[in-house]
Amino acid sequence: MDTSSLPLSEAIKHYQTRVDAILAETIDQLDDSASHLKAAMRHGALIGGKRIRPFLVYSVGEMLGAKLEQLDSAAAAIECIHAYSLIHDDLPAMDDDELRRGKPTVHIAFDEATAILAGDALQTLAFELISEPNSQLAPAQQLAMVKALARASGYVGMCGGQAIDLSSTDKRIDLTRLTELHNKKTGALISCAIELALIAASASELEQTAMTEYGQALGLAFQVQDDILDITASTEELGKPQGSDEQSNKSTFPKLMGLEGAENCAKQLVEDALSALTNLPYNSQLIKNFARYIVERRL
Amino acid sequence: MDTSSLPLSEAIKHYQTRVDAILAETIDQLDDSASHLKAAMRHGALIGGKRIRPFLVYSVGEMLGAKLEQLDSAAAAIECIHAYSLIHDDLPAMDDDELRRGKPTVHIAFDEATAILAGDALQTLAFELISEPNSQLAPAQQLAMVKALARASGYVGMCGGQAIDLSSTDKRIDLTRLTELHNKKTGALISCAIELALIAASASELEQTAMTEYGQALGLAFQVQDDILDITASTEELGKPQGSDEQSNKSTFPKLMGLEGAENCAKQLVEDALSALTNLPYNSQLIKNFARYIVERRL
Repeated sequence: MDTSSLPLSEAIKHYQTRVDAILAETIDQLDDSASHLKAAMRHGALIGGKRIRPFLVYSVGEMLGAKLEQLDSAAAAIECIHAYSLIHDDLPAMDDDELRRGKPTVHIAFDEATAILAGDALQTLAFELISEPNSQLAPAQQLAMVKALARASGYVGMCGGQAIDLSSTDKRIDLTRLTELHNKKTGALISCAIELALIAASASELEQTAMTEYGQALGLAFQVQDDILDITASTEELGKPQGSDEQSNKSTFPKLMGLEGAENCAKQLVEDALSALTNLPYNSQLIKNFARYIVERRL
Repeated sequence: MDTSSLPLSEAIKHYQTRVDAILAETIDQLDDSASHLKAAMRHGALIGGKRIRPFLVYSVGEMLGAKLEQLDSAAAAIECIHAYSLIHDDLPAMDDDELRRGKPTVHIAFDEATAILAGDALQTLAFELISEPNSQLAPAQQLAMVKALARASGYVGMCGGQAIDLSSTDKRIDLTRLTELHNKKTGALISCAIELALIAASASELEQTAMTEYGQALGLAFQVQDDILDITASTEELGKPQGSDEQSNKSTFPKLMGLEGAENCAKQLVEDALSALTNLPYNSQLIKNFARYIVERRL
């Protein structure tokens, strides 16, 4: 199917269905020796969501000429990393959240020990998926994917960002530190989704430069909009209590820039993302629409 | 240095020093953007220990003709996985241990959230280390290492074993289930150390068969001896409270087989490990001594 001409919502749905099927099948085919853990992994990995990171892997990859079979394991793997991070972030010792997308978080639906292990096992599963023999990818490409995913998830990326986030709670941090925090906590994995697509498509240097710029602007726009939604969206829209950042004394972009300042910042970042695509000789309508959607979404 | 003729204790020390230096350097060179997390990762990764898994990577790899530079990243990576698993196993929601090798566990020395993140980041670091460009290994070899490490650590291996362990506490489980538990929880990673060495050395099928048998027997012997030591060693020797398995109502080999039965079982497993080596055309003295040491050790 040529998704480049689909309306964004249909393209999102299309890729979401694809990656959800891979995740469900991967987990369902595990043996039942630790069925409680297996069920918790399934709950955490299939709790819903738009699958933004897989969407980027697929849409950018297909735009650059990669086949779906070259993108599947990367799309599923990056979602496993994202799912594991949510399970651990929700734990009582971390953000202590009981709801995620309107459903009980893993440590509520199961128990704390199982939630820790489910997160651990989903992280491992990401690296297992991405290193699975794949006749459509060269070993060097797969190895580059492992490396990219590990860097984006670890100390210099997502984990480091979460640590900065925890140490910043109840403190006022400046815009530079807040930007660093979110570039790591959220941005690294969004940029990584694009990097995985670039690797699968054996992208040229020009493509790499343009798409990296797009990804960095997009990742930050995403987080700024998340902060805005925490204030402006309802609990029902969010699927978690409205104003939870405020309550937990977290620094946010609206707090540092004002709501209007944050909204302008998000719009400017989207403009940056769009202008990065100008020189690409592809039909980039889909990922342009996606960038606009990021700041227009209500959840 | 030819370690094959060294006394076991010196060979252990030699490889331990090597892998500790790699781990310390790897962590120390991380930036200080999340210094608390970095310190916790260092605490967890360098809390001491004999480095049994790296020892197996190095000793088996060198015996089979691999160079140290082909083994370093695998040795460091498998120890990162082991270290992360200890950090998470020690958490209050899991085994709730305050001491590890006579030192405060990570959540005691730091805090619970940091301990969760330090474990997470050490797992990621393992996959980053093993996918680092390495001129001494083919990408296909490195990819096979990623795959082996992920399988041994995840649901079908270590994580699954820990989940079975948690669900078995306060229950009497039979010997088959206890063996499955430990083959996964401890055995998988010990077998994986040997698998990583086999990959690095591009081992023949004969070598793979012999060494896999050695590894499986060794892994189980290790756990049986651990259970024996929990009863027979002092708190000082163990670096954690003596009899802690008993207190936590865990099933152990001595409970199911009697102390003498467990001791005989451990000895038989070591004989199995030794006889697997009979047809190997190498000087296997070092790893023979290591197998004997596993059931003679006091900690």
